[in-house]
Amino acid sequence: MDIRLGIIGFGGMGKYHASIAPEGGVKVVAAADILPERVKEAEDQGITGYHSAEELLADESVNTVILTVPNYLHKEIGIKAAKAGKHVISEKPCALNVAEVEEMEAACKEAGVHFTVHQNRRWDKDMLTVKYAFDNKLLGNIFTIESTLHSGNGYVHEWHLYKKFGGGMMYDWGVHLIDQILFMMPDAKVKSVYADIKNILHEEVDDYFKIIMKMDNGITCQIELGTYILKYQPRWLAAGDKGTMVVQSLGRQDGRIYRTGKVLEKLPPQIAETEAGPTRQFAPLPPGGIVEEELPAIQTDVLDFYRNFRDVLNGEAEQLVKISEVKRVLSVMAAAWKSAETGEAISFE
Amino acid sequence: MDIRLGIIGFGGMGKYHASIAPEGGVKVVAAADILPERVKEAEDQGITGYHSAEELLADESVNTVILTVPNYLHKEIGIKAAKAGKHVISEKPCALNVAEVEEMEAACKEAGVHFTVHQNRRWDKDMLTVKYAFDNKLLGNIFTIESTLHSGNGYVHEWHLYKKFGGGMMYDWGVHLIDQILFMMPDAKVKSVYADIKNILHEEVDDYFKIIMKMDNGITCQIELGTYILKYQPRWLAAGDKGTMVVQSLGRQDGRIYRTGKVLEKLPPQIAETEAGPTRQFAPLPPGGIVEEELPAIQTDVLDFYRNFRDVLNGEAEQLVKISEVKRVLSVMAAAWKSAETGEAISFE
Repeated sequence: MDIRLGIIGFGGMGKYHASIAPEGGVKVVAAADILPERVKEAEDQGITGYHSAEELLADESVNTVILTVPNYLHKEIGIKAAKAGKHVISEKPCALNVAEVEEMEAACKEAGVHFTVHQNRRWDKDMLTVKYAFDNKLLGNIFTIESTLHSGNGYVHEWHLYKKFGGGMMYDWGVHLIDQILFMMPDAKVKSVYADIKNILHEEVDDYFKIIMKMDNGITCQIELGTYILKYQPRWLAAGDKGTMVVQSLGRQDGRIYRTGKVLEKLPPQIAETEAGPTRQFAPLPPGGIVEEELPAIQTDVLDFYRNFRDVLNGEAEQLVKISEVKRVLSVMAAAWKSAETGEAISFE
Repeated sequence: MDIRLGIIGFGGMGKYHASIAPEGGVKVVAAADILPERVKEAEDQGITGYHSAEELLADESVNTVILTVPNYLHKEIGIKAAKAGKHVISEKPCALNVAEVEEMEAACKEAGVHFTVHQNRRWDKDMLTVKYAFDNKLLGNIFTIESTLHSGNGYVHEWHLYKKFGGGMMYDWGVHLIDQILFMMPDAKVKSVYADIKNILHEEVDDYFKIIMKMDNGITCQIELGTYILKYQPRWLAAGDKGTMVVQSLGRQDGRIYRTGKVLEKLPPQIAETEAGPTRQFAPLPPGGIVEEELPAIQTDVLDFYRNFRDVLNGEAEQLVKISEVKRVLSVMAAAWKSAETGEAISFE
């Protein structure tokens, strides 16, 4: 069985799926939107256009839908889709909280349809490079991983501006950044969650956050997102007792591994003077004190998301993005909000 | 009255004071050390050498001592110095905890001598540049300040290796980095302290820490020190709703202020593709999207520390480094240790 996809919501993400899913073997059959010009755009691409989710759900040529409507609509439309017998792929965040996901999950189970979430950032090369280092102990025992996403595009747009629609950066990107950490180390438990969540340029929705997750494997994971930090810091910094890895940019592999050079075995740190006093611990190192290595090359293909779901429909594979994982991410988000509100660190798993 | 200084402990920091204090108007009269070769070094510099603190304290030509012995000895020798009628300058940390400082303070008060601590990193140009931005609202309302100190000099040295001597990086540099934040914004209260403190290359003493202080002025201050993070991140990152400041290096002013360019007023963010999906919020900005400014030039002279203490002795100035401030820093450190141990955020002021 192939995926015969109906896209519900033909805005930016809907069009994105229409453009790339065919390369992953998906037949894009139909698209629905409440805006007539978007319906026309779909039809111009040879996709059957509908003016409502309900009309699309009545199309028997569609066996799977993808929910690319604003976040607050995922639950309602997802449940309708399940009741119409369609398999359900939701854009992230799957829903606004765990309870909503559980309603969707129950509806899918009752209808006997499959249910997953497009957590596409699991295919980001930057994250997979750090995951490779973690899996292969390239940095020895890692003690800190910092996942950072800065931007000068301060203002948030369209429905992301409004709380009632599921707006804000926690829902938009927090859900990716937390998922990446949990995906990176699936066997680790999150001991605690501490967060700072702010509204910098927006009164209604968050546009800055820092989340610290202390894991039971000894690694402290920090996530920081700022839409208005104008000197972007590296996308990833991971440090272990055998080296440090930096990956500079979102989606790319521009970075290095740094290790102690052999010259330091013979040469103890020298005292260096700064204007206000001497330092030995923070003196500059001699040439060759730190040596650089290339990052390991990573191959990845985000189309595997669709291929996997097709195989799931055919009973041939385990689902890559599990609803249990999606719920865990939303639980971490809930803990982060609680931490930011109360000022406390929230005990987790 | 001039400062006629006796240096107790003629190791690295003792020699540092001997070399620079005269430029600040201090007469370096005597030095004591338990190692004979160091006593000889002092004598070779024309400084009267003693083999014990007690001998030095009996020297009537000394009116002020500076404690440059390992941290755990500050309290005991400081109290002896006060009883001998000497004014007391302690190296940082003043003592291992607030209770010890209070004993020293009481002894100084009883003896009618002045008491201060050499918090020389208040004269660091890097920190003063960020303080200037804070004081003058150069970045609008600042929401995050990150004070970061990384090094490839992984191994800690000499007595800093041992807990019983007051070793570890929290005592060595944590005391500076916390003091700098409190000095930067003296009117702000610390609402809470959250910390992660680790032993990476050392079993006995800490060599990595991250401390998050949420201030009642809305700024979240993060301090991170790692002696084994081999790709050093900027010494300071401060971001506000009108710009971002980066200062790259300890003791220097190599950095920039970053602001939104006028081009962005006309041009909304474009959608950018990454391999795993599109992004608008984190799309690269067009040329001119972010513009750079020079840092404001800062003048500073660490010798003002000695000049101020001389003026204090003469009743002509308010003491720059107050013991109340030193105790506040040690209280934050105690909260950080408690946070790291319990996993909780510690409510503070």
